[in-house]
Formats: sequence, C-alpha cells, structure tokens
Amino acid sequence: MTKPLLQIALDNQTIDSATSTLKSLGNEVDILEVGTILCLQEGRHAIETVRSLYKDKIILADTKCADAGKIVAQNCKDAGANWMTVICCATIETMIAAKNVMDDIQVELYGDWTFEQAQQWFDNDIKQVVYHQSRDALLAGKKWSEEDLNKIQRLIDLGFKVSVTGGLELDTVKLFQGLDIYAFIAGRNLREAEDPAYAARAFKEEITKVFES
Amino acid sequence: MTKPLLQIALDNQTIDSATSTLKSLGNEVDILEVGTILCLQEGRHAIETVRSLYKDKIILADTKCADAGKIVAQNCKDAGANWMTVICCATIETMIAAKNVMDDIQVELYGDWTFEQAQQWFDNDIKQVVYHQSRDALLAGKKWSEEDLNKIQRLIDLGFKVSVTGGLELDTVKLFQGLDIYAFIAGRNLREAEDPAYAARAFKEEITKVFES
Repeated sequence: MTKPLLQIALDNQTIDSATSTLKSLGNEVDILEVGTILCLQEGRHAIETVRSLYKDKIILADTKCADAGKIVAQNCKDAGANWMTVICCATIETMIAAKNVMDDIQVELYGDWTFEQAQQWFDNDIKQVVYHQSRDALLAGKKWSEEDLNKIQRLIDLGFKVSVTGGLELDTVKLFQGLDIYAFIAGRNLREAEDPAYAARAFKEEITKVFES
Repeated sequence: MTKPLLQIALDNQTIDSATSTLKSLGNEVDILEVGTILCLQEGRHAIETVRSLYKDKIILADTKCADAGKIVAQNCKDAGANWMTVICCATIETMIAAKNVMDDIQVELYGDWTFEQAQQWFDNDIKQVVYHQSRDALLAGKKWSEEDLNKIQRLIDLGFKVSVTGGLELDTVKLFQGLDIYAFIAGRNLREAEDPAYAARAFKEEITKVFES
C-alpha cells in the first residue's frame, strides 16, 4: 500500500484568493486542483496562473467535463493542466476523447453510477476515479458511511486509483484505514484554516500516522 | 402547442469570438447560451460581457453544474445569467440549491438517467430539461433516433419543457414535428455559417414552417 497523496482543491472565487492560498500551502501538498468554482469564475487564466507559480507540480483542472471532451481537454492542457476530471455520466466517447489529450483523467463519481460503467472506464484505460461526497449532500446532513467505504474497496479491487473528497477533516482520515486510497482531496478545511500550511502539514502527518501504522 | 424558441449556444473559445457571433445573430435568437467551453475558458467575464450587450434577453450559463449548486448559481446570477444548467447526475440537493438561486434551471440529460429521476426533478419544481445528443457521440456516428423522439415525448408528457440540442441542422427540425419542443439549441451550424444572421433566420423560418403547418 502506497501512502496516499494530499490534493488541495482550490475552490476559491478569484485568482487572487487562490494565489494567496497557494502562497501559504502550495509547497506542502502533492496535487494542485483548480476547482470547478474557480474554473467557472476565472476560466483558463486560473490554470495558467497556477502553472506559472508551480512549474513541476501536478495540476488538475476540475472541469467535471460532460461533453466536448477533446476541446475541453486541449484547452486545459494548453493552459498548463496535466489532469482533468470528467463527470461519471459523460459518455465513454467523451471520456476517451479527454483521455487521449491529457496525461490522465479522473472520473468524478456523483449520483447514480454502476460498477458495470466503472469496468467500462477501466477497460478503456481510464484508471482514476474520485469518490465524492457531494457538498450539497453534506450540507443536507449526509456523512461517510460503511456503504461508501465498501464501494471504495470495490473500486480499488477493480484496479482503480481512488481519490476521496467531500467534508474531509483530520478526524475523517482514519475512517479510510486499510483502504489503498490514492489521494485525499481537501479544500475549505485547509484553505480556511488559521494557518493553512500548518493545517496541510497536520493532514499529511495524520495520513502518515494512519497509513504507516 | 407553442412555437419552439431558438437558442444560440455560444461555444466560442474567447469573449471576442462570442461577441463577434452575437453582433451577427444576437438579435435573431431568443435565448443566449454562454456555452460550457466559453464558461471554462473565460469564466464569469463571458457572462458579464453577454449581459452588458443584451440587457433584456434570457442568458443561460451552461455550467453543467454537478455540485456546489448554490455557489455556482449565485456566481452565474451575479454575472448576469437568468438560467443555468445542471447535469442530470447531480444530486437533487444540488439541483434544488441551484434552482433556489436562479430564475430557472435546466437539467442536461446525458448518459444514463431514468424517468424516475425525472419525476423527482419535476416534483421538486425543476421543469426544464435539455435532451442532448453528445457532441462526442455524434462524432462517433450516432444520430437522432426514434428512441430519442419517444423519450422526448415521455418527458413532455411528464410536464417538462424540453429543449433539444446536438448536431441540429435545418433538415433536422422536421424530425421533431408534432412534439411540443420548448427550444432548439443550435451552435456551430449557426456560428460558423457564412452569414450567421441569415442562418438563424432560416432556422426560425423552418421552425415556423414545421410547427405551424
């Protein structure tokens, strides 16, 4: 089992705010995600700015692409992203079109999807998925459950690199003990911490503690 | 049966290009859609620019929102949009959160969705859907079929305002004769016409011919 990576979701509203977040914790995390909100607010300029600040980090554009996979992927790549997300209800054609352009893509698992679809993604060389607790579902009181963890295990068993996100806090990490998680994706809990760099380091230490113990 | 509206999908790559499209056909169409590609390339500035040019037209932000419905909707509204799209695999919480902010939302029907889900949307006062032939599916050779038309009729029977999009050409309009279509959404076939204003007028005339005959 490899130690999970830490990904920051830059769901900031402006480039200035994202830059400020990155100044404090950019060097502490493994993957820089230009969040959907930021993509929709600032467009490609957000990706370009993050790439200008971090030449060598993995940058993920969280486009949640549902169509026009080739064009969206080419735009993200041109702006400096290595990876992008596609939504699970996109057609396999859209996913393949995006995958053919980017270094890698992640399928965002939202709402209703099936393990048969997941197998189809995998068979088409799409090997990263994001298991997501929807922000709106969390706001409605839903939490990580045994059912979530079982589904994550099944995806890992199929061969996927599974990243997890949605309301992740320090206390949540240990829920995933024993699962071969690829990356933890944290957003507001790091960005809005009093000391984001400290919060990111604490998160990494918790990952180390849980996954190397 | 009401005569269907005509919506232009501004899937341009830049604000300048979108502005150029609007100059030629903006006055000919009923609904101005800031396409997903444009949203992701230029961010909120694209919506703001279209609103600055057309104070009174309906502007749809095609965000295909999958999460954070409230924030994405508020951002779109602040930028000047009346409507936005949500993706069909978003949770009902996301859809409701977006609906509570915008004048109206449209559910984009992609991939696997069910009529049970559609009923749930309708029961939650979400009454617009976009029946979509994926661009990537079209590129892979798929076409409008009897099955598509039957599904559209079922959605209309449920009470939805159904807009249709994907590879629509003048010749395609008559396929929908007898169906109470809410809007035809056309993109490249209008934008890239030699004379976009003429192409838009021809499309509207074809709609009139097919739906008032």
